[in-house]
Amino acid sequence: MTNELERLAVRLREFARARDWEQFHTPKNLAMALAGEVGELVAEFQWLTPAESADLDPRTLARVRSELGDVATYLVRLADVVGVDLVEAAHAKLDESDRRYDPDLYRGSARKAPPAAP
Amino acid sequence: MTNELERLAVRLREFARARDWEQFHTPKNLAMALAGEVGELVAEFQWLTPAESADLDPRTLARVRSELGDVATYLVRLADVVGVDLVEAAHAKLDESDRRYDPDLYRGSARKAPPAAP
Amino acid sequence: MTNELERLAVRLREFARARDWEQFHTPKNLAMALAGEVGELVAEFQWLTPAESADLDPRTLARVRSELGDVATYLVRLADVVGVDLVEAAHAKLDESDRRYDPDLYRGSARKAPPAAP
Amino acid sequence: MTNELERLAVRLREFARARDWEQFHTPKNLAMALAGEVGELVAEFQWLTPAESADLDPRTLARVRSELGDVATYLVRLADVVGVDLVEAAHAKLDESDRRYDPDLYRGSARKAPPAAP
Repeated sequence: MTNELERLAVRLREFARARDWEQFHTPKNLAMALAGEVGELVAEFQWLTPAESADLDPRTLARVRSELGDVATYLVRLADVVGVDLVEAAHAKLDESDRRYDPDLYRGSARKAPPAAP
Repeated sequence: MTNELERLAVRLREFARARDWEQFHTPKNLAMALAGEVGELVAEFQWLTPAESADLDPRTLARVRSELGDVATYLVRLADVVGVDLVEAAHAKLDESDRRYDPDLYRGSARKAPPAAP
Repeated sequence: MTNELERLAVRLREFARARDWEQFHTPKNLAMALAGEVGELVAEFQWLTPAESADLDPRTLARVRSELGDVATYLVRLADVVGVDLVEAAHAKLDESDRRYDPDLYRGSARKAPPAAP
Repeated sequence: MTNELERLAVRLREFARARDWEQFHTPKNLAMALAGEVGELVAEFQWLTPAESADLDPRTLARVRSELGDVATYLVRLADVVGVDLVEAAHAKLDESDRRYDPDLYRGSARKAPPAAP
């Protein structure tokens, strides 16, 4: 309850309430806002090689950090509005992935794996 | 260091290392994976009215929870790989929004606000 | 060969060649650019009700038109680079949908249908 | 009027009308459907290197073709519903890009260019 994600969610609730914006913060609208921000994040990497993306210059990294902040904001707000614990939900998916992707069978290979694998 | 997001990031590091998948987890690739998962999340809401999206039946909510888990997984992994603290980045953006969106000026209105406002 | 989509594809080829940008126009990169532009398009609608989105004011419509132009540009370029005929591919999917969604069974209902239905 | 995009748009109108799905086909909803399909398209390329994405095996290419068909379908439907001519809108953006990106200044460089450049 007093962890950092919960504190962020509470700040977002108060931010919305102070502006009477709760009416706009339906899950449908927040999912769209999240998609818009993820689009901006993806755009930062679109012309970089994978290697370049792993070695960002300070200006690009600052923009990436800013976009990550926007994405996290809408993701936490959306999860709060629908009543989902993000970290629990992530661990539940990882439990599935642990079972599905045997380390020995899938080692070093995105080929053997379905599109969503690594 | 011992908070829940850090623990999730550590689990994801180990998951990737055990499969030798670190080579696939460049920021570019992870941003794409994030975009793919957000697309699945958006699809859950696409034909619902905003009101319906705020009152999900249990089966839809279970799928939304699962998609939120996938989105959180890739977002935490991407932030870890580029070395960004997601919660700090979110608060930094909210500090900006607090300055930009005066509660009295923007109350109840998405109209006065730019597209990214509420 | 002389239809309007082919002419657009040819213009895009020449645009890229004149700037030696073909090296950046891999399918992976173009798919990311497409995702970025679709994110901007979605953002235009995020705080509107469905009804408002169907009755856009002239300024919003102008921005939507501009974003649609960007999306079409990258989609046509990507299809050209991978050698897919977009209109044929769309009709092939519609042939499937015609078989899958019997008009009498699915009439007026997004409920009976899977998330991707209407 | 009788070109191939217009014929596709007309087929989509009739598809929606036959199922009484026009009520779901608001610009807001269609933009979400488009984002969902683009997410699936991006996912096809997420673990491939740029070079691999330019040399797809037949099975991956078939999936990419199918996803391109879905993306084109929703893009044409959305443009039809808001009354935008996609090809005209794309050429208008290219006219801008022709002015903005001087071939000599931007040759071979995504670096000099803003994120959206190539």
